[in-house]
Amino acid sequence: MAQAPVLDRRSFGADDVIFKEGDHGSVAYIVQSGTVELQRGRGMIAELTEGAIFGEMALIDGAPRMATARAKTPVTVIVLPKMLVDSKLDGVDPFVLRLLHILINNVRNFARLMD
Amino acid sequence: MAQAPVLDRRSFGADDVIFKEGDHGSVAYIVQSGTVELQRGRGMIAELTEGAIFGEMALIDGAPRMATARAKTPVTVIVLPKMLVDSKLDGVDPFVLRLLHILINNVRNFARLMD
Repeated sequence: MAQAPVLDRRSFGADDVIFKEGDHGSVAYIVQSGTVELQRGRGMIAELTEGAIFGEMALIDGAPRMATARAKTPVTVIVLPKMLVDSKLDGVDPFVLRLLHILINNVRNFARLMD
Repeated sequence: MAQAPVLDRRSFGADDVIFKEGDHGSVAYIVQSGTVELQRGRGMIAELTEGAIFGEMALIDGAPRMATARAKTPVTVIVLPKMLVDSKLDGVDPFVLRLLHILINNVRNFARLMD
């Protein structure tokens, strides 16, 4: 890339919803501080802390969010816009791109199997 | 890549095990014909047909096979050696590589949550 993009930060209070299961997703996130909980239905599926990336799947495959992301504590996230992620995927070997899609499918299938 | 590698094919009879949960994995596969069933514990987690790639996760993250792959019908698979997959991943943008690892972690975590 020609220049490093300046990335937005967003802050959330404890218990705030960052995105909801079923939402259309246009950004992904990196946890900068705090703890984010991913929930599907009534089940907790992951707890994410500093450095974790989440919300990337809907960005890559265009399907709705498979989980709700909620701030468990006060949280600051770095926002990764779709354009940035697309630019990273641009020119990636087709086999690697296919692997990404297979893995996303696998995650979504597992989530459905768990329901 | 300088030249297209010649890829081995392997054939399995119905009910043959292609790999077992817990195995160390050094190759991935593409289904060329027939149906492959992925099982974890006593549960069936996927049925794969022509063109599907499987067994790629253990190759990328080095962890044991999370499922058993069994031929449901007579099956022919194309063998993707680790060296080939590594060569595809070589030089991939670090962010994309990180996405791959995150997604593999997610699949493995879901599988554990399902147990």
